[in-house]
Amino acid sequence: MKRVGIIGIGHGKFGRRTDASVQELAFEAFREALADAKIAREDIDASVIGSVPEYHKQRSLSGVVQEYLGLNPIPTWLTEDACASGSAAIRTAWMAIQSGLHDIVAVIGCQKMSELKTPEILALMGRVGEVQWESIFGTTFPGYYAMLARAHMHEYGTTKEQLASVAVKNHHYGAMNKHAMFQKEITIDKALKSAPVASPFQIFDCCANADGAAVVIMASEEKAKEISERVVWLDGLGSATTTMSVLRRPTLTSLPSAVDASRQAYKMAGVSADDIKVADVHDCFTIAEILAYEDLGFCERGKGGKFIDDRESYIGGKHPVNVDGGLKSKGHPIGTTGVSMTTEIVKQLRGDAGERQVADANIGLTHNVGGNGQYCFVHIYNRE
Amino acid sequence: MKRVGIIGIGHGKFGRRTDASVQELAFEAFREALADAKIAREDIDASVIGSVPEYHKQRSLSGVVQEYLGLNPIPTWLTEDACASGSAAIRTAWMAIQSGLHDIVAVIGCQKMSELKTPEILALMGRVGEVQWESIFGTTFPGYYAMLARAHMHEYGTTKEQLASVAVKNHHYGAMNKHAMFQKEITIDKALKSAPVASPFQIFDCCANADGAAVVIMASEEKAKEISERVVWLDGLGSATTTMSVLRRPTLTSLPSAVDASRQAYKMAGVSADDIKVADVHDCFTIAEILAYEDLGFCERGKGGKFIDDRESYIGGKHPVNVDGGLKSKGHPIGTTGVSMTTEIVKQLRGDAGERQVADANIGLTHNVGGNGQYCFVHIYNRE
Repeated sequence: MKRVGIIGIGHGKFGRRTDASVQELAFEAFREALADAKIAREDIDASVIGSVPEYHKQRSLSGVVQEYLGLNPIPTWLTEDACASGSAAIRTAWMAIQSGLHDIVAVIGCQKMSELKTPEILALMGRVGEVQWESIFGTTFPGYYAMLARAHMHEYGTTKEQLASVAVKNHHYGAMNKHAMFQKEITIDKALKSAPVASPFQIFDCCANADGAAVVIMASEEKAKEISERVVWLDGLGSATTTMSVLRRPTLTSLPSAVDASRQAYKMAGVSADDIKVADVHDCFTIAEILAYEDLGFCERGKGGKFIDDRESYIGGKHPVNVDGGLKSKGHPIGTTGVSMTTEIVKQLRGDAGERQVADANIGLTHNVGGNGQYCFVHIYNRE
Repeated sequence: MKRVGIIGIGHGKFGRRTDASVQELAFEAFREALADAKIAREDIDASVIGSVPEYHKQRSLSGVVQEYLGLNPIPTWLTEDACASGSAAIRTAWMAIQSGLHDIVAVIGCQKMSELKTPEILALMGRVGEVQWESIFGTTFPGYYAMLARAHMHEYGTTKEQLASVAVKNHHYGAMNKHAMFQKEITIDKALKSAPVASPFQIFDCCANADGAAVVIMASEEKAKEISERVVWLDGLGSATTTMSVLRRPTLTSLPSAVDASRQAYKMAGVSADDIKVADVHDCFTIAEILAYEDLGFCERGKGGKFIDDRESYIGGKHPVNVDGGLKSKGHPIGTTGVSMTTEIVKQLRGDAGERQVADANIGLTHNVGGNGQYCFVHIYNRE
């Protein structure tokens, strides 16, 4: 099988971006990705938009974004899988190239959530849980993940301090990331004393809604080698779905979609968890990162709390995780997140991550969850 | 290049379906498609949902629909390109199979528009036009297409009678289609005297919002031949984008996206317009079908009115078009439409269209437009 590679990345500032429309946010990241790939926009022959449409006044975003980027008349489509929309876009771009239909595809993650007010966002997000039997009774996203946290605490003795430690780590690295929404360190004490959201979560256990865009440009093996001397290859793809309704899940202390997706991706890339030198995982809430350690096989089931205690997910540890700050510190523009993760892994594999660089990072992974865990996409990247 | 084939089709009743949720609508069509393909749901290894999410209370439809169909834990994603979402889904399913990632993919077009009231739908649809400079001033979808109709009348002398003739033809065939929303014949006189909507359109120039679902099951060449003795092959794919803003279009008497998409599809399939024995085109308004005749090359530019006058788009004419009733008579559940078109072409190519059968239909085409013309997807199917 031929390979598909990343030849360009771009990333805008995440945060409350009332200064720019969603298409302007996309342009900010796209311009950087084009320059990084050293190609012209005319070289691109399709675009995929990763976004959740209903947060924007402008609907059918793919057309208006592509028009603003000057990419017409090439084909464009939007993919949506809730908070995993960006990774779904990357997956369809991989297919587009591998199928021979397109040679160079731009994947544009873009989302402007500040067009809505927080209660509107909470209500919309709740409806990404199962409407008929769950969200109609008031379940919000912090509530969904709080249930998972409680179950993990009950079953494995995971503590609130361990949850807070995830936030402390991610803010530590986010403080060094110029694109992050929150570029400041926090302490365990500050996290534990912050405002309560949904027990056991304080506000520092939760990521923030954000505006922002990220772009990756992908190419066929032949084109990638022709264009770039430092291609990062997307060699492993995994994707799985579990019940939307948490009531019907076989377990609350794991995301079955993440277990399945990671096993598919490892197999396809011919690697194992031990080979992963750097990972970006979906820490929408602190418990989600602990579940990811376990679901990805970075540590044994139930040992996620110990994994962060032992600083195994810090640079220098066994599996550095979210050393760009994660959703927790970068902010979470939902459709953009999967693409943002990819830009970080590419940067790490190229050795361009500066003070956040993981030594000898040759193989990296992204783990992007959609909804309350119903979707998971795992991608494995290789610099060789 | 290997081929990708359609091995199963299913289609539910279109109309005001207050009797069923969107996932129940999907199930209705899916069950039929499974039985038609003579496979089990466990044989399917990915699903793509064609839908425009914001019309439903339930968000992130792919997860909840797939769960209801019993397809978990396979990958699922939603594609959105406004009214062309169904064709965008088929295109990504083709890629998924041709890339080697999946062997059998279910494409599920499903949409329930009656969850919203008509003014809400009009407002949402307007925002599929360009928000910043157009829809904010009140442009609705009938208004957009009325501008195209006026331009065509001005430039080529197309008449209101010719527009109405398209509606008469499509209702004629829709009367024979059990899935259609409106199963009754109309007359030119009735159409011309119906309520005005946006000059020059009367209500019979406009298709209706509808609820409904359609499913196609696609497979790799190898799997398709193994499973079915009457595979219909998707041999030509075309997709192009023109400006969302109609102000920036080079012409109002053609959809450049449709011209580009059809040329790509003809080239890929190795056929020409003359080879197309049956077509389903996007007649969201009567003018749109006349533009399609010209954009697809079924007749010369400006001669679309004469084409319907000469009954060339009836069965027995040069290019029978929308002999299932089209959007006009079937109704238009926006994300479903592209998939619905495909089921009709497959039926025709199999020779299963009963009293609506086009003789010797070996090559067929679908033409699915998104938004006010910014997207167009053309697919060419071959029974041999």
